[in-house]
Amino acid sequence: MKIRYAQITVEPGKPQINFLACQKAAQKAKQDGINLLILPEMAIPGYLIGDRFEEDDFIEDCEFFSEELSKEATEDFSLIFGTVMFFESLSKQPRTGTDGRKVKLNTAWIATKQGIFHKVKTLLPNYREFEEPRHFKDNLWVKTNMKDWEMFRSYNINGVSLGVLICEDGWDEDYELKPFERTSQEGAQLLINISYSPFTAGKNQARNRKFSNHAKKLSKPVIYVNGLGLQNNGKTIFCFDGSSAAWNSKGELIAHSKMYTEVSADFEFLNKELFALEPLDYQETTEIQDIHKTLIYGIRNYMRQSFLQKVVIGASGGVDSTLAAALYAEAIGKENLLLVNMPTKFNSKTTISIAEKLAKNLGCWYTSVPVSESAELTLRQINHLKPTNYLGENIEINLSAFNMENVQARDRGSRILAAISSAWGGVFTNNGNKTETTVGYATLYGDIAGFLAAIGDLWKHTVYDLCRYINEKNQKEIVPTEVLTLKPSAELSENQAVDKGLGDPIIYPYHDRLFEAFQQWWQRPSLAEILQHYLDKDLAKFLNHNQETELTEELIRNNFPDAKSFITDLEKWYKLFKGMGVAKRIQAPPIIAVTRRAYGFDFRESAIGAYFSRKYLMLKEKTLQQNS
Amino acid sequence: MKIRYAQITVEPGKPQINFLACQKAAQKAKQDGINLLILPEMAIPGYLIGDRFEEDDFIEDCEFFSEELSKEATEDFSLIFGTVMFFESLSKQPRTGTDGRKVKLNTAWIATKQGIFHKVKTLLPNYREFEEPRHFKDNLWVKTNMKDWEMFRSYNINGVSLGVLICEDGWDEDYELKPFERTSQEGAQLLINISYSPFTAGKNQARNRKFSNHAKKLSKPVIYVNGLGLQNNGKTIFCFDGSSAAWNSKGELIAHSKMYTEVSADFEFLNKELFALEPLDYQETTEIQDIHKTLIYGIRNYMRQSFLQKVVIGASGGVDSTLAAALYAEAIGKENLLLVNMPTKFNSKTTISIAEKLAKNLGCWYTSVPVSESAELTLRQINHLKPTNYLGENIEINLSAFNMENVQARDRGSRILAAISSAWGGVFTNNGNKTETTVGYATLYGDIAGFLAAIGDLWKHTVYDLCRYINEKNQKEIVPTEVLTLKPSAELSENQAVDKGLGDPIIYPYHDRLFEAFQQWWQRPSLAEILQHYLDKDLAKFLNHNQETELTEELIRNNFPDAKSFITDLEKWYKLFKGMGVAKRIQAPPIIAVTRRAYGFDFRESAIGAYFSRKYLMLKEKTLQQNS
Repeated sequence: MKIRYAQITVEPGKPQINFLACQKAAQKAKQDGINLLILPEMAIPGYLIGDRFEEDDFIEDCEFFSEELSKEATEDFSLIFGTVMFFESLSKQPRTGTDGRKVKLNTAWIATKQGIFHKVKTLLPNYREFEEPRHFKDNLWVKTNMKDWEMFRSYNINGVSLGVLICEDGWDEDYELKPFERTSQEGAQLLINISYSPFTAGKNQARNRKFSNHAKKLSKPVIYVNGLGLQNNGKTIFCFDGSSAAWNSKGELIAHSKMYTEVSADFEFLNKELFALEPLDYQETTEIQDIHKTLIYGIRNYMRQSFLQKVVIGASGGVDSTLAAALYAEAIGKENLLLVNMPTKFNSKTTISIAEKLAKNLGCWYTSVPVSESAELTLRQINHLKPTNYLGENIEINLSAFNMENVQARDRGSRILAAISSAWGGVFTNNGNKTETTVGYATLYGDIAGFLAAIGDLWKHTVYDLCRYINEKNQKEIVPTEVLTLKPSAELSENQAVDKGLGDPIIYPYHDRLFEAFQQWWQRPSLAEILQHYLDKDLAKFLNHNQETELTEELIRNNFPDAKSFITDLEKWYKLFKGMGVAKRIQAPPIIAVTRRAYGFDFRESAIGAYFSRKYLMLKEKTLQQNS
Repeated sequence: MKIRYAQITVEPGKPQINFLACQKAAQKAKQDGINLLILPEMAIPGYLIGDRFEEDDFIEDCEFFSEELSKEATEDFSLIFGTVMFFESLSKQPRTGTDGRKVKLNTAWIATKQGIFHKVKTLLPNYREFEEPRHFKDNLWVKTNMKDWEMFRSYNINGVSLGVLICEDGWDEDYELKPFERTSQEGAQLLINISYSPFTAGKNQARNRKFSNHAKKLSKPVIYVNGLGLQNNGKTIFCFDGSSAAWNSKGELIAHSKMYTEVSADFEFLNKELFALEPLDYQETTEIQDIHKTLIYGIRNYMRQSFLQKVVIGASGGVDSTLAAALYAEAIGKENLLLVNMPTKFNSKTTISIAEKLAKNLGCWYTSVPVSESAELTLRQINHLKPTNYLGENIEINLSAFNMENVQARDRGSRILAAISSAWGGVFTNNGNKTETTVGYATLYGDIAGFLAAIGDLWKHTVYDLCRYINEKNQKEIVPTEVLTLKPSAELSENQAVDKGLGDPIIYPYHDRLFEAFQQWWQRPSLAEILQHYLDKDLAKFLNHNQETELTEELIRNNFPDAKSFITDLEKWYKLFKGMGVAKRIQAPPIIAVTRRAYGFDFRESAIGAYFSRKYLMLKEKTLQQNS
């Protein structure tokens, strides 16, 4: 039997477009003499479509197009694809769920000439951005509610028993049910996992280990197909990278498709073994390469889906806006990119010349609009303003130097960039990185504004890594090298003068790792653990989390020679992370997710401030008493 | 046995504060000779705290304070309260869930001198803003994983068998398990439901019917206690209104506590019947009264939780900012409120004088800052701007009249209001209503900016109703009456001149009801249904949804005399609702929820545009063919 998987693009909430893409793949497969085509999970409806799953006419259309697609099956050709369906379409019994709406299922359809068979997803993820139990019931629920339902049956196609699994069904460590084992036990000869799983740095390596193990342990070949596409949950944008793969019954990798590429791979199933019909063409990529590809894919497709072409970037000459400009230039073309430098009186010649050089390196549009005149107007209009009440009493409004920093930041975003981009028929960007985003080190309606936060899930160290990678990859200077050694600074006051080596209050090599522990580790350490490691003098090792970084124990000691200074800094940032940071993130633009915990829908936050546990407070008290 | 419920305030994520409030209630109850005190669900941790439930040291503290609170039990005094706990604390077996973290439970603790008994919540809601299965396992799961666990056992206190249920356990229509019935069958004499349930317009009436029915059907008295408080999910803010109540075994209401008030009610349980020790003091309130109370409570407590005192409102003289000003004045005091009128050259004397009068009526601070000078500066700086590329080519930026409308809107929000409020040490507000919010009829970083969208869940008709109610309640003119008859308008161009009767493109009596059907009905109608009702000439009746409104079939016919004009309008707004509306909501401030579907966490949206179903497209095609 000749088998193909096709790594197609799935458009969220567009069943007709997805049907056509699937149909095209099916017709091509038939021409090529393929007997079985395998397509991704949720290939008809898309996956991250929010509460659109509540709309019955949408589900009805998904069923309609799934039926249509199933008609492609012939004597010699079957296909497997993922889609949504009502439980009642399976059971012929009307049934509502705990939200009072019709019960829906995440299913694989096995479409053959003999009829359509349905497999229901067994494991429904309910963490990170996932919330499948909000919309679907699982395989076990169907078993409980439908007589004679076989949860782990196989499907005979061309004399081969196929076990069909859906995405999370293969990631079974933390679940009681083990769908791969059960399906194998019940007679499957070939295990097929259809997925629609977003990119997360490092995940494909874990995936390769996991699925190779399934194959080896069960002595059965495994095919894993994952779709492409860009889907979002409003606040968080996910890139689905494909990277489909297959393993033979020894667990050896026999196929591995390129990320973000519409490709397919062909196999022969013979004597209980799976053979790839093309030689394996797979080189492990680095995390930075993967992140770079993801961001380019994300920007390009978010623009496409939003019917946008042109982008304006406020180019400060700092590393974040520089990286953003380099990424957009690659993703959408230099002719669609306009850099605007907006100097205040505090901006150095250094950064202005970096911004100019960047535009030259990219070959994009460039202009400069100063913000001083507007800042003066605001000062003139608002400073010493005397609102009155109806009794004739006055209060006086006085703008502090700090207020004026924010006035300038907002002037750049909400006045200049917003006006230029709308006049040019485009949008402007948010260039914040994850470090700033964590602690809200940015101005609402100022640098927080923008249609998309493309690098909002990158820690500052990754911003630098990516800049260096872009220069290496292009074998020339795209990112002006000066920016890589410049002190990061907002340049909004004398205290942030880069030429004097002044700048941000964040000690990036340390705080990057600290904030990562606060937010991104799967098992986030408590503040008490962090303080204990400081006291034990192994905090650098702990925060480095088995990676090699710039962070050393010496760096920590130099900055925080005593526990008191360490605690003051720790609590200051933790409060910002849980306080002002949350308030600002609520109104921040969508972020392209690349890590295992992106802000937004992936990391659900209430604006309720920081919590210091009893354990932490007791350790802190003990520490400060001993040290005083 | 003397029983008391206490409708206490629960602070989200603040176990120590909550413990102290519970302890105080317990000590008071003991002084008063009470034998059993009943406190709300999740009284120790709070409820809407997002992924803070993933933090083990937080859960440990909740368990610690729950143990401490349980120590208040004596020979004569027991208490029941809701809290979170690890499954392993119940079973002594370590156990992780499908997210790899320790399994947690939403529990009621029945604390007696003989020991602490634990009841686990049976029904975990997973719709609207709720997502309990993300964090907790349910009673049935515990039964499956713990030998001898009795799901519906009663607890004997002073010789009375108490059945203990938790919130959703009482709302069992859509669930297979019926916890009230099962608990009653297994011997409970008195049914106690501890809740932490947010305000939704009309819900208490439904709740009263539901719980009265439980009592009547089972012939057993029911006590329902609900907590107070303000909790949020980032984008959406929920007010927990209390309104605790009790019914005797005939289903008669015997106690009903006031909304948003820290009160308790005492009962005697005697001969299988429950008697209130105070006479019933309950008057049904109107929806507008409830909404008014909720918004005042919401504003006041969101300010308090955010450590904010002062508020600046851009007062345009329109009905939305007028209502906002009236609400804030009541919630935080006129001395903390500053109204700023920001006229452009398009603003009428009419609206300016309304804004002045409003400030006078409220007795708050008032000032005026015109935006024309800044608009001119922007025009001078940006219009005809010629960005260049490194080859020396030029493009030219031209600001259209429409671009300038948005320039002015952003100038008001991001320049003037932001600067004034930060200089005054306060914040400024978003005054958008739900109608505008639905279709994104507002400017990002302009009128969409602000720390809180207090009236963002009110349709335009409710905005008017609330204005009228405020004047009635105060028996004087708070809201200048002129505003109630003025044509709603953004006043950003000649085409929006209110004195000429020009203004918004929204036909409020119709579009309010249409948008409500798009978004807020529990079973949202499809566009095909809406079009069919238009064709059947009963759309007004359909959209009125059993309410009396201003919408008549005639109004619809006058505005849309033929199907083509109707369809054009329908699709235009639907596309905005699903397109630009979503994009703007992603960056909009948090909304105080009052309806059964508020934007944000309660209504999960992906930015994926509008979907027109096959059914709709076929009906549309048929209609247009027949009419052409």
